[in-house]
Amino acid sequence: MRLAELQTPCALIERSVLERNVATMARRMAELGVSLRPHVKTHKCAEIARRQGGFQGDAGGITVSTLAEARFFAGHGFRDITWALPLDPERLAAVAELQRGLEGLHLLLDDPAVLAAVEAFGSAHGVRFSVFLEVDCGYHRSGVDPGLGEAFELARRLAESPVVEFRGLLTHAGHAYRCQGAAELEAVAEEERSVTAGFAAELRAQGVPVPVVSVGSTPTMSRVRDLSGVDEVRPGNYVFYDLHQEAIGSCRRRDIALSVLATVVGCYPQSGRLVLNAGALALSKDRGAEHVEGFRGYGALLTADGSRVLDHLRLTGLSQEHGHVQSFPPERAAELPVGSRVRILPNHSCLTAALHEDYVVVDGDEVIETWRPVRGW
Amino acid sequence: MRLAELQTPCALIERSVLERNVATMARRMAELGVSLRPHVKTHKCAEIARRQGGFQGDAGGITVSTLAEARFFAGHGFRDITWALPLDPERLAAVAELQRGLEGLHLLLDDPAVLAAVEAFGSAHGVRFSVFLEVDCGYHRSGVDPGLGEAFELARRLAESPVVEFRGLLTHAGHAYRCQGAAELEAVAEEERSVTAGFAAELRAQGVPVPVVSVGSTPTMSRVRDLSGVDEVRPGNYVFYDLHQEAIGSCRRRDIALSVLATVVGCYPQSGRLVLNAGALALSKDRGAEHVEGFRGYGALLTADGSRVLDHLRLTGLSQEHGHVQSFPPERAAELPVGSRVRILPNHSCLTAALHEDYVVVDGDEVIETWRPVRGW
Repeated sequence: MRLAELQTPCALIERSVLERNVATMARRMAELGVSLRPHVKTHKCAEIARRQGGFQGDAGGITVSTLAEARFFAGHGFRDITWALPLDPERLAAVAELQRGLEGLHLLLDDPAVLAAVEAFGSAHGVRFSVFLEVDCGYHRSGVDPGLGEAFELARRLAESPVVEFRGLLTHAGHAYRCQGAAELEAVAEEERSVTAGFAAELRAQGVPVPVVSVGSTPTMSRVRDLSGVDEVRPGNYVFYDLHQEAIGSCRRRDIALSVLATVVGCYPQSGRLVLNAGALALSKDRGAEHVEGFRGYGALLTADGSRVLDHLRLTGLSQEHGHVQSFPPERAAELPVGSRVRILPNHSCLTAALHEDYVVVDGDEVIETWRPVRGW
Repeated sequence: MRLAELQTPCALIERSVLERNVATMARRMAELGVSLRPHVKTHKCAEIARRQGGFQGDAGGITVSTLAEARFFAGHGFRDITWALPLDPERLAAVAELQRGLEGLHLLLDDPAVLAAVEAFGSAHGVRFSVFLEVDCGYHRSGVDPGLGEAFELARRLAESPVVEFRGLLTHAGHAYRCQGAAELEAVAEEERSVTAGFAAELRAQGVPVPVVSVGSTPTMSRVRDLSGVDEVRPGNYVFYDLHQEAIGSCRRRDIALSVLATVVGCYPQSGRLVLNAGALALSKDRGAEHVEGFRGYGALLTADGSRVLDHLRLTGLSQEHGHVQSFPPERAAELPVGSRVRILPNHSCLTAALHEDYVVVDGDEVIETWRPVRGW
């Protein structure tokens, strides 16, 4: 099957770009001496997760964002899973059931009340849980502040709890998404490393064992130079990258593996407008790296074969199923009459991918296969 | 089953509010003497579309945004469907196949080249298509400018085409979403009516028959006072409404029927932050009515039972699966420890609904049933 035979809108994965991204990250992390436990929330599909693990020579640990992902990947043979969302204690029964068939299902918490709930459940049901302490390394979304005594105390309680296997420290440097350029990304990567590894060293010095130090987002892991004191990293977006990652300096334009193929369904050269049949439900309304000067719109347009950037076109708005395009100069809109096709690079590939029932894997003009992700919670 | 037994995040529909919204719009449109052909893209589920039609005493015509919706609703017994997206001629074979089992499948075009493609396909395959001419009444997204001679010419060509049943004129006043207050909405409603009905009158005066004049979005139809010269209207969002509609004056807060039930998974009273387990994939990143002063954030928080607005909390950011909440004053974050539940009213209910595999229909504390929408293209 050829690209031109696909129905639009649809999500395309350029296989060669995906495989290069996967190989590059695996090689860099191996060189830096850490395990790669990729976050599969970006794609939520088994075919990509297997490739991510394969380069390390094992079926590999993964990171997930939902219990639905955990169940799906467990069903596809993944046996060592970290659920990287602060634990909702109401899900403990579901966690206990799922972990029975796994080597490991690791949880996150940052609150003594949640530990108390874990201990109450574990004692009542005779179950042990593997638990990370989540650390705030500067993003200020979740996690304990390692500078506070209560963080130390919670780590000690985890390490001493009879129903918990204390897995170690885990952090996410989400503030890297607000960076611009390699130098800033390297600085956040170093903050992420030093805060978390430093806290682990303090804990160990006080007799609290810390088995695993887990860090790493795509922006920081794409630029990091030193991972001393780190055991594993959890980037996810790097399989696809996107315009946000390009804008902040994580990748080059040609590293973006995910795109949306769309058809022109309205052409108005007098006002320089085009309408595409890809709107908010094909792309998501993520506005990307708005803090970066010159970043604007809901995606970048390429020719359908992906070979050429259509710099004179801007994706200025999204209705539910319409993409609104403005041409500069206006008359060049006539170059793409109704029926023409374009490829759209997304601002945020994780959100775009999650809107599609299937991913169409292509190699240039050739359609290779279709992969189906999981959804929901 | 009770509300408290639901797994979070999930999409809730308050049945009584939905039914009131459906009944109110049906009554108003009946009073104004027009047919209601609701746009089902908001919910994409048969149970709601049946209620929308039921109040008119027939199974009713509907409007859809995708061919996947058209197929789904045809499979659920809907026999008269308008596909309200400018036609992609590549879908004509699929349209021809689907319309065989229907009373009507009405298409949109605004481009002579598309008409030529329709005629070529129709002649080659011996098929007739029912086609609206899309009119731009001021939104400037798609449609012909009725002030131009070429619009008149295209209408005449449609009316005279041997393979087209000219259905009439159709418009969408999307610029109503940029309004603020009843007076502005009424003005756009009148513009939508007068531009489209006026063009129909001109065409008829010149001997071009115009069977149907079709207008109407939720903002305009929630405030319109006169629909002279209009035959049918196509609002969709009104079944759920949302914060955007409230902000521009289409509805009251208590008319919002769709919400997302979420659980607090992080509580940080020192900095006044909460983290919810509902992020961009449960809510969408639509920023709503940003042009309205004071409108901000990604949703409004209520108590889990929906009875009380939590005005001191703002949903300031969304990660993929995390909702970031800020409390004013900070210490009030402590009122919602981990495990607490909240209800989130969405900025844009169409996009929020499309992210959920099922809708949970509730009546106060009671869970009534689950409805499953269609997705994709």
